[in-house]
Amino acid sequence: MNILISEVGPRDGLQSIERIMPLEAKKAWIAAEAAAGVREIEVGSFVPASVLPQMADTAELVAFGNTIAGLTVAVLVPNLKGAERALAAGARKLSIPLSVSETHSLKNLRRSHDQVIDEIARVATMVAAAPAGERAHFEVGLSTAFGCTIEGTVPEDKVVDLAERAIAAGAAEVCLSDTTGYADPAKVRRLVRRVKAAIGDDRLTSLHLHNTRGLGLANVLAGLDEGITTLDASLGGLGGCPWAPGASGNIVTEDLVFMLQAMGYQTGIDLEALMKVRAIVSDALPGEPLYGFTPDAGLPLDFESRAA
Amino acid sequence: MNILISEVGPRDGLQSIERIMPLEAKKAWIAAEAAAGVREIEVGSFVPASVLPQMADTAELVAFGNTIAGLTVAVLVPNLKGAERALAAGARKLSIPLSVSETHSLKNLRRSHDQVIDEIARVATMVAAAPAGERAHFEVGLSTAFGCTIEGTVPEDKVVDLAERAIAAGAAEVCLSDTTGYADPAKVRRLVRRVKAAIGDDRLTSLHLHNTRGLGLANVLAGLDEGITTLDASLGGLGGCPWAPGASGNIVTEDLVFMLQAMGYQTGIDLEALMKVRAIVSDALPGEPLYGFTPDAGLPLDFESRAA
Repeated sequence: MNILISEVGPRDGLQSIERIMPLEAKKAWIAAEAAAGVREIEVGSFVPASVLPQMADTAELVAFGNTIAGLTVAVLVPNLKGAERALAAGARKLSIPLSVSETHSLKNLRRSHDQVIDEIARVATMVAAAPAGERAHFEVGLSTAFGCTIEGTVPEDKVVDLAERAIAAGAAEVCLSDTTGYADPAKVRRLVRRVKAAIGDDRLTSLHLHNTRGLGLANVLAGLDEGITTLDASLGGLGGCPWAPGASGNIVTEDLVFMLQAMGYQTGIDLEALMKVRAIVSDALPGEPLYGFTPDAGLPLDFESRAA
Repeated sequence: MNILISEVGPRDGLQSIERIMPLEAKKAWIAAEAAAGVREIEVGSFVPASVLPQMADTAELVAFGNTIAGLTVAVLVPNLKGAERALAAGARKLSIPLSVSETHSLKNLRRSHDQVIDEIARVATMVAAAPAGERAHFEVGLSTAFGCTIEGTVPEDKVVDLAERAIAAGAAEVCLSDTTGYADPAKVRRLVRRVKAAIGDDRLTSLHLHNTRGLGLANVLAGLDEGITTLDASLGGLGGCPWAPGASGNIVTEDLVFMLQAMGYQTGIDLEALMKVRAIVSDALPGEPLYGFTPDAGLPLDFESRAA
């Protein structure tokens, strides 16, 4: 069974730290991960450089990523303008966030649900204008799907409803995002099942999970049990979590790959090579904490035979 | 659904650090965890004080723990002599380790499998000599059950075989221990299923898991799916892992309780109260690293409603 790891460190990791990683280091990181077998990388975000100067070189990174054979270059776009820039740059996958908590949506994107759904429809139309073979994959990331640090409980009915509306507006797929680290395995199973039942198995194949309370990989397991086949993760858990010093935000790519391969899933990734990529990141961002248990502990003696 | 958390920090945690925690601090720790709702605590190990001076006060701790209503006092015993001392002290649960890797057994306990099985039979006879209502619970901990840092792969047939022999020798139950952090969720499911099929559902109800490679809670989830109802864990992941700086050894009680309660399992534990117990440990062992994500991140806004 094949699982796709979508590396989000160059976007989600780098946008959450203040320092700006130089373009050449980002390229080296992306190239090294691709060489280790990572087949999809979210290289940046098409937000205004005034808002996130860390992401100002996203167009160059898309162009660079597209020179690497077998790599799908993904980007985040906040709106139609960002989507235009993403398509012009040649991105192969676009994700737009839609926060299930409307309070969070208003605060974060300054838009109501209706406004975001309208924007999704406009982006979908633009994406669909390309010839069939060249069309980018357009996904809606349902953020705060498992709970919100402002609203608290996010009703599951609301998640299902917005998933349906996103698909109706023309998105190819939705992704459930545990933006706040509120997910637990029971909730992951329940929600994935409900959303798939509503919009179809092939419209929900991916999860974006955090490790805020240490449950990241348990939540991955719950997702796998429900047929999830794509998992976002960040090398070294880069980015951390602003309100929880010492706690990592995104799940750690290295530990995720270890778990999957130990279980017999195929990821196409050479884990030893992947762990060496950490040096590129720590050289470019001295002192920035990197997370992950497997890099510290090393691989078990029997790893090769289990991964085979 | 009720899940029993067996706190092993005072034994497994404290035996793996050099400093000796004063008896009064140990008592305060045990009392505070019991007050937070923890119903089983492994308070120490009946090994010679010359080998592990950290455990020299185990008899006093058993006596102290027995004064706490509703608390099951568990201890580790390496052999018949230790079991004698444990019973004399009044321990309610005895665990003896049987390492599935015979190389590890010879190195660690200086005994072959046959020798340990003989010792198990002698301990079982001694335990059974008590009147039925006063009999201690006697468990065999199958260490290195998921792999060995010396032998590498540990054949699953060997685990099943030793589980059968331990029960035949008179143990009430076996526990599977991931001493080395080699377990993964697929292996946990497979092995729990096989061992239960061989010796009966009520002969394998507990797992002792480590978080060496970050998979601890995912492995817990796999165990729960197979009907496991007792989980060992250590407050703050105390003890760490000697060959992996920064990596925790035992799974962290606080994160485990968070996951279980968020999923709707009942543990009887007040998580806020449990997290406050960390202060007792860090005051008694200044500078000793404590692990865990939930204590850093805090509880989600909707936690009360989920745990209810």
